[in-house]
Amino acid sequence: MRAVDVIQAKRQGREIEGEDLKALIAAYTTGEVPDYQMSAFLMAVVWRGMSEAELAAWTDAMLRSGIVLDFSDIPGTKVDKHSTGGVGDKVSLILAPLAVEAGLRVPMISGRGLGHTGGTVDKLKSIPGFQMELPTTRFRELVEEFGCGLIAQTNEIAPADRKLYALRDVTATVECIPLIASSIMSKKMAEGIDALVLDVKVGNGAFMRDVEQARLLSQTMIGIGARLGKPTRALLTNMSQPLGFAVGNSLEVIESIETLRGQGPEDLTELTLHLVLEMLRAAGPVADEAAAMNMLRSYLEDGSALRCFRKIIEAQGGDPRVCDDPEAVLPRAAHTVELRATASGVITHMNTEEIGHAAVELGAGRRTKEEEVDPAVGFYVHKKPGDTVVAGEPLATIHYNDERRRDACMARYAAAVTIGEAADHTHIPLILDRVM
Amino acid sequence: MRAVDVIQAKRQGREIEGEDLKALIAAYTTGEVPDYQMSAFLMAVVWRGMSEAELAAWTDAMLRSGIVLDFSDIPGTKVDKHSTGGVGDKVSLILAPLAVEAGLRVPMISGRGLGHTGGTVDKLKSIPGFQMELPTTRFRELVEEFGCGLIAQTNEIAPADRKLYALRDVTATVECIPLIASSIMSKKMAEGIDALVLDVKVGNGAFMRDVEQARLLSQTMIGIGARLGKPTRALLTNMSQPLGFAVGNSLEVIESIETLRGQGPEDLTELTLHLVLEMLRAAGPVADEAAAMNMLRSYLEDGSALRCFRKIIEAQGGDPRVCDDPEAVLPRAAHTVELRATASGVITHMNTEEIGHAAVELGAGRRTKEEEVDPAVGFYVHKKPGDTVVAGEPLATIHYNDERRRDACMARYAAAVTIGEAADHTHIPLILDRVM
Repeated sequence: MRAVDVIQAKRQGREIEGEDLKALIAAYTTGEVPDYQMSAFLMAVVWRGMSEAELAAWTDAMLRSGIVLDFSDIPGTKVDKHSTGGVGDKVSLILAPLAVEAGLRVPMISGRGLGHTGGTVDKLKSIPGFQMELPTTRFRELVEEFGCGLIAQTNEIAPADRKLYALRDVTATVECIPLIASSIMSKKMAEGIDALVLDVKVGNGAFMRDVEQARLLSQTMIGIGARLGKPTRALLTNMSQPLGFAVGNSLEVIESIETLRGQGPEDLTELTLHLVLEMLRAAGPVADEAAAMNMLRSYLEDGSALRCFRKIIEAQGGDPRVCDDPEAVLPRAAHTVELRATASGVITHMNTEEIGHAAVELGAGRRTKEEEVDPAVGFYVHKKPGDTVVAGEPLATIHYNDERRRDACMARYAAAVTIGEAADHTHIPLILDRVM
Repeated sequence: MRAVDVIQAKRQGREIEGEDLKALIAAYTTGEVPDYQMSAFLMAVVWRGMSEAELAAWTDAMLRSGIVLDFSDIPGTKVDKHSTGGVGDKVSLILAPLAVEAGLRVPMISGRGLGHTGGTVDKLKSIPGFQMELPTTRFRELVEEFGCGLIAQTNEIAPADRKLYALRDVTATVECIPLIASSIMSKKMAEGIDALVLDVKVGNGAFMRDVEQARLLSQTMIGIGARLGKPTRALLTNMSQPLGFAVGNSLEVIESIETLRGQGPEDLTELTLHLVLEMLRAAGPVADEAAAMNMLRSYLEDGSALRCFRKIIEAQGGDPRVCDDPEAVLPRAAHTVELRATASGVITHMNTEEIGHAAVELGAGRRTKEEEVDPAVGFYVHKKPGDTVVAGEPLATIHYNDERRRDACMARYAAAVTIGEAADHTHIPLILDRVM
């Protein structure tokens, strides 16, 4: 079938054979099908959507465009967690060692920060020496020996997705549930996992603004996982405020280590525990959930999860002393300043996307793909929605290296916070829904 | 505004500013906006459509991508006719001299055959010596001196349309009323005309299969014409059978000359007269339509229209003797054969697109863009829908130069004709509607 016929079929809303979708992806990966045909096809998908069968074939073709890892000979259940991205989301750093302690194996391939959201790669790279660009042979060894490997996305995995993503970015075809779902799942299904847990963020700091869209995205990804034989589950979680208090790479590593010591922020701790519980459920039936949660909590309190994290850091070349005295080991900003409230009342609303952009202004994220992040900068959030505040009290502590960037950050942060009457604040639960 | 934002706006169904559409076309023409962004935009237009204001700005930008002819200093009303394409449609050859005799000026820029439909350029080029690739300065002289110039499309006129058309062809975005309408109108509005008449073909030999779609296309083009200050009118005409009897370039010139002598097929004569009447109406009020039609008929019968055609042919380098003895002057095929009916009854249906393809099989049209047409080949249609036929009677006379191509033509022609009961035939009027 010619590419133009496949585009025509999608344009008309007709079902496309899996073989034709696979041929389209294969020819696009080699460059035989040009960008201008693929972008027309993608816009037709935005318009017409994709059936479950189409989506499974499309995702399968994308994941087979590169190497597909196979860890089936490594004993134990391999489970990963993927977050759709938020502000202050350092869950992976706590979750990976905790899941290993709970008996799972966690082959985790992470991305860099994207837009206003942070990325696990940027956070872990603030640990001196920590290597994430590892060959897949080394990744396998890590999973086998330590139960966990934490590596960065590579061109070898799902190259079709990388090429498609770059095209979608310039053709207004990013926001599209089947295309988002297949992009995420093609990378995850190539990781050699047995099951997957999704943390689908919902709210004003997330790509999904409303719970219905997030539920649809979750169901779509779960459907793909089911068809490709990898059980997938999702939690829909609140991203209308930063997760935890720390935003910025070094600061988030510090907060992650505090959490691994059992002294982390409540929202971050609870979400991580629930996501690990979901990973256990994805691996097999959990008879007594309360007992499982208590066991997971004990791994934080008795230091075993932190010891596991220390081993992983050491195995990947990082300085293990970060687990003992993170503030001494991690790069720190030269200056701090308090951003103070100009009015009294209750925080009724935080524009969390803007809070994320405020961190990018400081240098914690990238304004262009080429920019380097500054691992040291960021801020601690002191007041979140529902908190009472008195004029002059600190809303946040800004860690900065450059005054111009500090000013841009503070202006953007201040504008993102609304102080009003207690009656105007609506509490949003941490976990909005569970989808499987 | 960035191209991606314009695509996003169209994707979301938002109204786009005229200035942004103009910038998009301008940047696409220079190559600054790549094909892959334009094809995504085009698919979004297929999905969301275009408002009247958007379409006028889009068409205006396309027509301004090249030179725009201005004949306003030439006295008289400049009116052209455009057909959406059919089988046996040689109307332009008769209409242009007739309209000149009726006092109009006709600057006509024509295309080559496309798919199963013929093109005025291919027909006129079968006249030995006839030049259609003329500079616009010469085109102006012809319009000024003879009232009419008949030239071929050039890269100078609406180059954005040429580039867009090639892109649409490979991205399944050809069938789309706003894109079809803007493509036609951008070329016509650059011709230096004051008004335009459209012959929108409807039926199984036309690009528009049903009258509702044809009406919508007509209204869309009329809307563009109105916004750009060029009054436009349309006739919706039957293309569920060939027009006239001759199909093929030399054969169609012969039939055109017979019609200019007042001895042409009735359908061809009547349609041409009605289209010229419509051109007169577009130029100004026609007080007595019956008198106008009688006048037009007299130009056929008294030979004045043919004399006018002779002058135009001579002015463009063609052999004027074609008007006296076309069969002697025009290239003729080496052989003829009758295609005979294998059953008796009434012709209930002709698949006119297939009849057109049968002519392409002979060499009267092109299977690929690069192919040369054979001006000599074609056929005369002897039986049309509603006609009674006896087994063994000729359905058509095939003029051919190559036996393999003859066989392919005859097989395709025979399969396109259905012979049945008189009761199964539905008469379709020549003119289905008039839109303005």
